[in-house]
Amino acid sequence: MEQSELAAWREGWVKRLNEELSEAIKKPMADEPPEVGQLLSAMNYTLESGGKRLRALLVLAAAEAVGGQEQWALPGALAVEMIHAYSLIHDDLPALDNDDLRRGRPTCHLVYGEALAILAGDALQALAFETLASALLGDLAEPTSRVSQALLILAKAIGPLGMVGGQAMDLAFEGARPELTQIITMESKKTGFLMGSCLALGATLGGADQKTISAFESSGRLAGLAFQISDDQLNVTGDAQLMGKNVGTDAQKAKASVTTLISQEQASEQVSLYIKRAMSGLRPFNSPKLEWLIGSIFGRSS
Amino acid sequence: MEQSELAAWREGWVKRLNEELSEAIKKPMADEPPEVGQLLSAMNYTLESGGKRLRALLVLAAAEAVGGQEQWALPGALAVEMIHAYSLIHDDLPALDNDDLRRGRPTCHLVYGEALAILAGDALQALAFETLASALLGDLAEPTSRVSQALLILAKAIGPLGMVGGQAMDLAFEGARPELTQIITMESKKTGFLMGSCLALGATLGGADQKTISAFESSGRLAGLAFQISDDQLNVTGDAQLMGKNVGTDAQKAKASVTTLISQEQASEQVSLYIKRAMSGLRPFNSPKLEWLIGSIFGRSS
Repeated sequence: MEQSELAAWREGWVKRLNEELSEAIKKPMADEPPEVGQLLSAMNYTLESGGKRLRALLVLAAAEAVGGQEQWALPGALAVEMIHAYSLIHDDLPALDNDDLRRGRPTCHLVYGEALAILAGDALQALAFETLASALLGDLAEPTSRVSQALLILAKAIGPLGMVGGQAMDLAFEGARPELTQIITMESKKTGFLMGSCLALGATLGGADQKTISAFESSGRLAGLAFQISDDQLNVTGDAQLMGKNVGTDAQKAKASVTTLISQEQASEQVSLYIKRAMSGLRPFNSPKLEWLIGSIFGRSS
Repeated sequence: MEQSELAAWREGWVKRLNEELSEAIKKPMADEPPEVGQLLSAMNYTLESGGKRLRALLVLAAAEAVGGQEQWALPGALAVEMIHAYSLIHDDLPALDNDDLRRGRPTCHLVYGEALAILAGDALQALAFETLASALLGDLAEPTSRVSQALLILAKAIGPLGMVGGQAMDLAFEGARPELTQIITMESKKTGFLMGSCLALGATLGGADQKTISAFESSGRLAGLAFQISDDQLNVTGDAQLMGKNVGTDAQKAKASVTTLISQEQASEQVSLYIKRAMSGLRPFNSPKLEWLIGSIFGRSS
């Protein structure tokens, strides 16, 4: 596939994803009391602020890479964006990172208050599982088997041994001096596990066998690790305007990050290495879309 | 069944449930970094502090009432207790109810800090879905179909239109003067939806048809509403020692509660009415356990 075809594929799906996410939140508003409407608004505030929808695109591309239809994996793609939005809202809370800028806008708790921001994150997590479970009602082949497997994959990835465990490590490492291997474990959990589940969800909904699903999960975790290390780099060298969030915050908060232990050059080498390892696991499936998405992690500026 | 048989049935299951919940949290500790262990401790702190396990028992009894085995519904029973514990942890946070006493102990955020309490709630929600999804691997008949349906029921019940929506209404009503119907809607969402899902989950995992599942869900919601109104009453008249939590807090925080609009006597009549309605929907299934559990909501002192 040409670069322009890939870009057009992405643009088409991002538009569709944004519409579907908006619909998922706004559709129930009409029938609900205004107080619930306010909760839905708080959820939508972070969800609609976009980002690149990288996680959702990975789900869709993975489904196609294993011979399924992208469409089959759409509920999974929406679910991971909801999970990602929930994790951002809770991560930004005063008790956690206390960030005031996200995707170029004031963070959710600044606009809706801390209490509603906590509830909005909670509700986005539940809505993610509901959305994925709703794939039961779509045109998926073997829906109950694939959906139940996909739900198990997602729940494991974002639970105490996965994403939230990574957040807890991040919290515990503030002001501490963890070793590089500890930071890598933390970053793998914090970012790698969700990205691993993106590829595994796509493969599952696309009809892959267990061995393929595991291979996709491993590659996704490595890609997520590369993504998180490049995030650490951008927190030091990035352009706040371009990224829509504050920079230099890790150093201010004495947060553990690979850049406190290795140079920017070494970090770039690590990113490149993890991307290569992620790609090599996917090579047999010959997916230009997956390779392009994962390749885009290297050298990103936002 | 005799009263003593019912009590023995409950005692046996509460012991088993407590062991299984403890195992779910403690088993992974050995293989995880200590920072994740700390998160698991925070989760366990509220989960192990017990309560009556009413929600879990409703799941088990519902499975048997529709002709299934209680054992089939165990993952659902554990999941609802995890959801309940998560909702208590987040509800007690300074930004929400700011409570310092729960089940006779300092609240989770007082012991583990606000940040870890937020993460513990988040992780318990994910673990609940993982636990329910793990019923796939048990001895359930038609596992993928029943489990995927059960996951959809739980996710809907605790999402923005259900439990978390009720919390958002509760928050918005602080210091406001909602009407009785608005308070009833709030309490139905906040407490009724999860209890409705308990009966629906049990029925689903027990192998019931769609019509039965819906009937169970309706009865559970009514029972949950009765439970919440009696909770409002206990916040005024209850014994803090016996309940293990502070009383008089609704009035202090100017929270909306049925007791601000109707007398204690009228509230008791409402509790009795909702219990009767809940029971009448279940009568055809002739389940002494379900009737006993729901009946216990009336006149409870803790």
